[in-house]
Amino acid sequence: MIDLYYYTSPNVRKVLIALEELGLDYQIVWTDISEGDQFESEYVEINPNSKVPAIVDHDGPGGRRLAIFESGAILLYLAEKTGRLLPGDPIARQEVLCWLFWQVANQGPMAGQAAHFVSHAPKQGIDNPYARNRYAGEVARLYRVMDDRLRDREYLAGEYSIADIATFPWTRVAAGHGVDVADYPNVKAWADRISARPAAKARISDPREEKARHHVYTPEQFRTLFRPEGSQS
Amino acid sequence: MIDLYYYTSPNVRKVLIALEELGLDYQIVWTDISEGDQFESEYVEINPNSKVPAIVDHDGPGGRRLAIFESGAILLYLAEKTGRLLPGDPIARQEVLCWLFWQVANQGPMAGQAAHFVSHAPKQGIDNPYARNRYAGEVARLYRVMDDRLRDREYLAGEYSIADIATFPWTRVAAGHGVDVADYPNVKAWADRISARPAAKARISDPREEKARHHVYTPEQFRTLFRPEGSQS
Repeated sequence: MIDLYYYTSPNVRKVLIALEELGLDYQIVWTDISEGDQFESEYVEINPNSKVPAIVDHDGPGGRRLAIFESGAILLYLAEKTGRLLPGDPIARQEVLCWLFWQVANQGPMAGQAAHFVSHAPKQGIDNPYARNRYAGEVARLYRVMDDRLRDREYLAGEYSIADIATFPWTRVAAGHGVDVADYPNVKAWADRISARPAAKARISDPREEKARHHVYTPEQFRTLFRPEGSQS
Repeated sequence: MIDLYYYTSPNVRKVLIALEELGLDYQIVWTDISEGDQFESEYVEINPNSKVPAIVDHDGPGGRRLAIFESGAILLYLAEKTGRLLPGDPIARQEVLCWLFWQVANQGPMAGQAAHFVSHAPKQGIDNPYARNRYAGEVARLYRVMDDRLRDREYLAGEYSIADIATFPWTRVAAGHGVDVADYPNVKAWADRISARPAAKARISDPREEKARHHVYTPEQFRTLFRPEGSQS
C-alpha cells in the first residue's frame, strides 16, 4: 500500500496518474497546503521541503517502509518499482530522464511562477506586469520547445512514459498560467492522446477535492501558500 | 571523451565538478548564452531546450554517441555510468534522488529567480520589490530546509553524492541571490567540507571564463538571456 499525500495540484496529479496507470494500491492522505498541513512535524519528516506530493510506500525495497518527496523522484521510483513507463534500453531510458528533468526544472517551476502572476496574485489585487511578462514569455518558449519536440513524435521520448505523465497535468491547467494549448497544435494533439487514457481521467472521491479546485484563497491562505513577504518558515 | 557545453553558470558547474570528481575525460565546448549560441540549430539538436549545460558522450552505452541535457539528468547519467556518487542500495539511492530532484526543481529555479530580481534586473534599472521579496523569501526558506537537513548529517543524503554536487554550486553564488550562507551554519560547514575537495575547485583554462564571470550584460544580452518581454523564441 502506498500513501499519497494529496492536495489539488498538477504536481500531485502526476503521481495520481502514475499510480492509476500502474495499477498500484494506494490511499489518499488529504494534505491541505492552504491551511499549513505541510508544516506539521509529522509531514516534515516525510517531506522536509513542506510541499506536496509525497508518498510513503509501506512495501518498499526489501519490504521496508520508504518515504519519497519530489514528484520527479516519485515518478522515477514508481517506474523502477514496476519496470514500466521507463524503457530498459539505456539510451531510450536516458531520453525519458532528460524530459522528466526538463519538466521538473522548467515547465513545472516556470508555469508555477506564471500562474502566480497571471492568476493568483491578481485575485489579491496584485498587478505586476514585468514579472507577468517575464514568466508568460518563458512559459510560451517552453510550449514552443514542446511543440517542436512533438512535431514528429507521439510522446516526448519514445513510448508513453513518466516524462509525459510529468508534463501532462501542467498543460491541463495551462489557461491558469496564461497559455492557450490550442496555439500549440502538436501539444494539443499529444494532450488529447493522453486525455483519452483512463488513468489520465482519474479523480479522487474526497469531497474536499471539488471545493479545493474552485477555491479562491483568503489573504491568509495566500500568505501560507506563497509567502510574498518571505516571513514564514 | 565527453563534450561539455559550457558557460559560466552554477548548473554547468555541477557537471564540471562531477566530471572532475569521477576522473572522466572531457573537453569544454564554449557556449556563449549571452550571445545566443544556445539557439543555433546544431546546439538545439543536442539540447532542444536551449540552455546550458548539455553533454555529448562519444562513448555512451554500447559505445554509442549520446547527447544529454538538463544538469540533473547529466549528473544521474554520469553516476550510473561510473557506479559512483550514487549508492547501490535502493533506499539510500532513493534518498539521493529525492535531494537531487529537490535541487533541480526548487533551489536551482528559485535561486535563479531571486538572482534575477536581486542582481541582474537592478543592474538594468529594474526595481521590483514584490518579486524580489517573493523569491528572496522562498530562497531563505529553502536554505532553512537545507540547514535543518544538515544539522546531524555531513551530506544531504548519506555519503557525498550527486545531490551535494547539484546543490553546492548554487550556494557558492548565494550572495547573488541575496543569501549570506553564514546565516545557515550547517550549510556553511557543509559547503566548506565540499570546497576542500580538489574537484570542487576545478577551473577551466579558457580565458573567456574570467571575462564571463565579471561581465555586466548589455541590454541586448540581457534580453537574449532573460527575455523580459517574452518576445524571443
